[in-house]
Amino acid sequence: MIIVLKSGATEEQIQHIVDKTKKMGLKANISRGVERTVIGLIGPEDVLRVTPLEVFPGVEKVIPVLAPYRLVSREFKKENTVVKVSKQVSVGGRKIVVMAGPCSVESAKGMRDIARKVKQAGATVLRGGAFKPRTSPYDFQGLGEEGLKYLQEAGRAHDLATITEVMDPRHLELVCKYTDIIQIGARNMQNFSLLNEVGRIKKPVMLKRGISATVKEWLMSAEYILSNGNFEVILCERGIRTFETATRNTLDINAVPLVKQLSHLPIIVDPSHGTGVRELVGSIAKAGIAAGCDGLMIEVHENPEEALSDGPQSLNPKDFSAVMKDLEKVAGAVSRTIL
Amino acid sequence: MIIVLKSGATEEQIQHIVDKTKKMGLKANISRGVERTVIGLIGPEDVLRVTPLEVFPGVEKVIPVLAPYRLVSREFKKENTVVKVSKQVSVGGRKIVVMAGPCSVESAKGMRDIARKVKQAGATVLRGGAFKPRTSPYDFQGLGEEGLKYLQEAGRAHDLATITEVMDPRHLELVCKYTDIIQIGARNMQNFSLLNEVGRIKKPVMLKRGISATVKEWLMSAEYILSNGNFEVILCERGIRTFETATRNTLDINAVPLVKQLSHLPIIVDPSHGTGVRELVGSIAKAGIAAGCDGLMIEVHENPEEALSDGPQSLNPKDFSAVMKDLEKVAGAVSRTIL
Amino acid sequence: MIIVLKSGATEEQIQHIVDKTKKMGLKANISRGVERTVIGLIGPEDVLRVTPLEVFPGVEKVIPVLAPYRLVSREFKKENTVVKVSKQVSVGGRKIVVMAGPCSVESAKGMRDIARKVKQAGATVLRGGAFKPRTSPYDFQGLGEEGLKYLQEAGRAHDLATITEVMDPRHLELVCKYTDIIQIGARNMQNFSLLNEVGRIKKPVMLKRGISATVKEWLMSAEYILSNGNFEVILCERGIRTFETATRNTLDINAVPLVKQLSHLPIIVDPSHGTGVRELVGSIAKAGIAAGCDGLMIEVHENPEEALSDGPQSLNPKDFSAVMKDLEKVAGAVSRTIL
Amino acid sequence: MIIVLKSGATEEQIQHIVDKTKKMGLKANISRGVERTVIGLIGPEDVLRVTPLEVFPGVEKVIPVLAPYRLVSREFKKENTVVKVSKQVSVGGRKIVVMAGPCSVESAKGMRDIARKVKQAGATVLRGGAFKPRTSPYDFQGLGEEGLKYLQEAGRAHDLATITEVMDPRHLELVCKYTDIIQIGARNMQNFSLLNEVGRIKKPVMLKRGISATVKEWLMSAEYILSNGNFEVILCERGIRTFETATRNTLDINAVPLVKQLSHLPIIVDPSHGTGVRELVGSIAKAGIAAGCDGLMIEVHENPEEALSDGPQSLNPKDFSAVMKDLEKVAGAVSRTIL
Repeated sequence: MIIVLKSGATEEQIQHIVDKTKKMGLKANISRGVERTVIGLIGPEDVLRVTPLEVFPGVEKVIPVLAPYRLVSREFKKENTVVKVSKQVSVGGRKIVVMAGPCSVESAKGMRDIARKVKQAGATVLRGGAFKPRTSPYDFQGLGEEGLKYLQEAGRAHDLATITEVMDPRHLELVCKYTDIIQIGARNMQNFSLLNEVGRIKKPVMLKRGISATVKEWLMSAEYILSNGNFEVILCERGIRTFETATRNTLDINAVPLVKQLSHLPIIVDPSHGTGVRELVGSIAKAGIAAGCDGLMIEVHENPEEALSDGPQSLNPKDFSAVMKDLEKVAGAVSRTIL
Repeated sequence: MIIVLKSGATEEQIQHIVDKTKKMGLKANISRGVERTVIGLIGPEDVLRVTPLEVFPGVEKVIPVLAPYRLVSREFKKENTVVKVSKQVSVGGRKIVVMAGPCSVESAKGMRDIARKVKQAGATVLRGGAFKPRTSPYDFQGLGEEGLKYLQEAGRAHDLATITEVMDPRHLELVCKYTDIIQIGARNMQNFSLLNEVGRIKKPVMLKRGISATVKEWLMSAEYILSNGNFEVILCERGIRTFETATRNTLDINAVPLVKQLSHLPIIVDPSHGTGVRELVGSIAKAGIAAGCDGLMIEVHENPEEALSDGPQSLNPKDFSAVMKDLEKVAGAVSRTIL
Repeated sequence: MIIVLKSGATEEQIQHIVDKTKKMGLKANISRGVERTVIGLIGPEDVLRVTPLEVFPGVEKVIPVLAPYRLVSREFKKENTVVKVSKQVSVGGRKIVVMAGPCSVESAKGMRDIARKVKQAGATVLRGGAFKPRTSPYDFQGLGEEGLKYLQEAGRAHDLATITEVMDPRHLELVCKYTDIIQIGARNMQNFSLLNEVGRIKKPVMLKRGISATVKEWLMSAEYILSNGNFEVILCERGIRTFETATRNTLDINAVPLVKQLSHLPIIVDPSHGTGVRELVGSIAKAGIAAGCDGLMIEVHENPEEALSDGPQSLNPKDFSAVMKDLEKVAGAVSRTIL
Repeated sequence: MIIVLKSGATEEQIQHIVDKTKKMGLKANISRGVERTVIGLIGPEDVLRVTPLEVFPGVEKVIPVLAPYRLVSREFKKENTVVKVSKQVSVGGRKIVVMAGPCSVESAKGMRDIARKVKQAGATVLRGGAFKPRTSPYDFQGLGEEGLKYLQEAGRAHDLATITEVMDPRHLELVCKYTDIIQIGARNMQNFSLLNEVGRIKKPVMLKRGISATVKEWLMSAEYILSNGNFEVILCERGIRTFETATRNTLDINAVPLVKQLSHLPIIVDPSHGTGVRELVGSIAKAGIAAGCDGLMIEVHENPEEALSDGPQSLNPKDFSAVMKDLEKVAGAVSRTIL
């Protein structure tokens, strides 16, 4: 922690800070410059987290030296984490994992059909929402447990692992019964009650980045899960909110190599939410792979015209299949594989 | 709903849309321009919410005509809603309500002391967090039920109504036992499970705007609460996230008169979170009143140096008291009153 | 300047930095913490501006201690700058200055009429654009010199000072002949050629904040003008670009007290561009005054239906006159005056 | 143009709009819905650009049907534009063009050395700034004409085309004498005087996206150039400003396929400014190619430690050469070539 003092800071103010921080077990190193005095504090920064040094008299600003996350950082663990989802599926290794399926689970037959088709095209995880976070209370809210059953059946029928979102800590036990990966959606990235709960289960968790979360905040939310004991975390970049309105979100492609640098956790890209525009999904999926992601989540619907949610950004099975062939080429160019 | 077709849209594509929407009970009005054909759909727009017209062949874009919220809108209810909190306190009338107190409840004695001082200065509602949403799992997380008790005691001792945040639907019943207003924090503005639950209680709810929520999304979240039967909703503008880093958030002052125009619900301003900088709190509180808000939420701590959270943006009781005197003058200038 | 080293930084890397910075006349103060070594550099920071310390081996990040602006800062000059525009008009004193008029100068008669009316309502500066920055090449681009003449005539006829925008350094001499204040628009806030030129003239300059400029960058742009010798600079907050689309821009009300704290220069608020919505202009003008601004710029048009630009955010003279009466009350509440 | 009326709009107000627009040569098509009346206007939308329909009594909102740009759109020209820069270099064809070199021209020898090295690695255009837009007036501002000479000499010596930025219309003639492509920087994307001037020259222009420009505004700025007669325009995505501070900008990868869809103009990606972090440049360059860009602009400096500007985001020649080999593989995967 570094403390920059105001230009007129007094000796008394400096001494006050030195005394306070000494009591916390920190050593103060004082640099007196021409225009500013700077105090460097040596020792465990964590004790300072709950002490608002900014309000001490004479302080201009306080600058942390260390990143506030530990367990998720590359410094804590040098080698890449590989999250084992099922016998066939691992996320974070050489093989890029594709999670595909409809935004919402809509029917048993629909799920079985789409499962067969995404499997054929090369996906290994089946997605489908049973509890849907919708901006409007009047929109389709998901089928609940019924939807979970359809998802599980379709996954089993076609030997696909499954992923679905949980929005409420009270549903967690139920959702865990039916699915292989638990998804925390963007709107719940800082639902700390929920993060604590999924930190205590023994299943992989995919944590989507919040719509306006910095990479640092996102990693802090992952830290909630790891610090509760669950290290099987997959990060998912799904676009952030910016001033640009021509696309639903702005996919932050920089986040892919940045997260790989800062953390050992695997990261996947969601080009469907990241663009919101079907015609852009293929290009952005390719970009994600080129940038170094470990997987993709792509919305595929038998008939996007009839989808109960997110139709405009869903691919039909034929287009998905064509995209997968292109992706395999790009994966090869960065020494990875998909199919 | 207005549908703009692509420049090369065929007659067949137009007919396909007309047929589909007819089945939903809508009448299509077709305008053939030189460069574009436009279809206006007449009838209940709600049936279109789950039909992704954007993916129909030949469609360029789809433009909704109506706002997606109903119960919260001025069209639904012309006169201002006044939320009755207690015998003495109502929000939305001529008197501007000031909610003050520490970010977190820290001790029984501390709450009593601060309660006495904010009361003396003119506040009528006591705030204090018992369940704290913290970015880091290693930061102080609140005292839980113990904190709720201290808050209630301090409020009763000084005849102040109380407000505290609930983060988890499983805590709602507990929190309701101790407090007069339930706060939904910015991070939970789209925690739809929680919104549904507070929609079913019989207590006033203060809904903070999400850090990157548009005014429309914020009103949609309020709609969740009203549509479940609870009309006692207070909105709170607390700053949004922008590129500016010199302040913690950017208080969106435009939102105050805008919300008053779009909705009948009362709106209050939180200059503490809206700036994150103690020295700016007074000026922005004045601006909020001048812009037409119905109340203020201000963080006050006996000794900001020792605060377990949000010290840098907390006023001490003496400064708070001085700010209140200034606010009374501005309130008078816009035909309102505070003290 | 503070340099935080990577966790594995070697002694050799540390020595390399110490040697390099010593050659620049800086003294290095080394703090060896448990997890990180930090180097504080003492001496003139300016020599470091062109040396990219971030790329030195072993460096994790570089943190400047001083603000990069000097002449515009409160540290350089403690008392408020009062910009004298004409015998009657000064900006930065107790009296709040109102600049009003149409977005674009459209005709000689139109300017005279509106000048009379804004004068009657209490404005002391007449605005009107002759060179218009328009997003589209097909929109009205302004009357050029003809417009400048109409503006000057109308100002003289009604004893109003005048302000107009200059977009091109080649027009500066011309514009200076006709007007009392030179406006630099938001789009040109970082047109450094233009800033250098207006730094060399002897007329007041009003510098609008760029649509996505931080307060720091804005002050740096003002520094360009002052460092060229012109200290007569007025800042103008006119809204920034955010994700919110219900208003044209988001007026950053926080910037008003923040700029007053960081700088001695006067600041005015433009609620017309800051909202883009006529119905919100009055409320936001009041908020600006309550927050401490030194003036307002408000678009007024005889008949907004016929305006060649910015009609939706223009007040008609009658509404403007009513707003002015409200503003006088708020000004009184903060010990200022308008009329 | 579509006009949505307020819920209480009167017949008189409707007639007023119909009459006004009839005079402009437009036909009005009225749809009376249950809750809203909507007027569709048929005829040339351009006449409406300067008429603020939003302020007509009874109007709630006005929705344009057509994109405001014409010449740059795919509708105007279906096939891709290929900009011919020199005998060897064209932008927009199958071959991806790499522009490389230092941020600023610093010396004659330095330019020759770096030219040789980037040429060897596969670049075909040499970049280097002689007029530098710097946030601070105290930073290095470029060598001016001297720098232009060094750039030209180095380009000729190694058979590379050249590109440099022009910031001031008064420098345009000078810059044109020395360089093959004229760059308009992000800060000048809406410097309309400058856009008009480069629209009148006979050289290719590379137009960088403004730091907070929407894709629509960016295309409108390109329209300024084309509408003045110069169709040789290359667009350059260089990152936008968002709330994320871990990277200098957020590269908007979505913009690449989006621009290809909306416009016939070629688009290149600048991963150096788009990230601001050397370690991320290679990954983002790969992503740009995978997403479909036509070229890259990469900052390369002999010794980034000594660079007078943008050192932290510059590659050294060895790293650049390694990146180029990786890029060739990704280019192959999308049926393009670089080397």
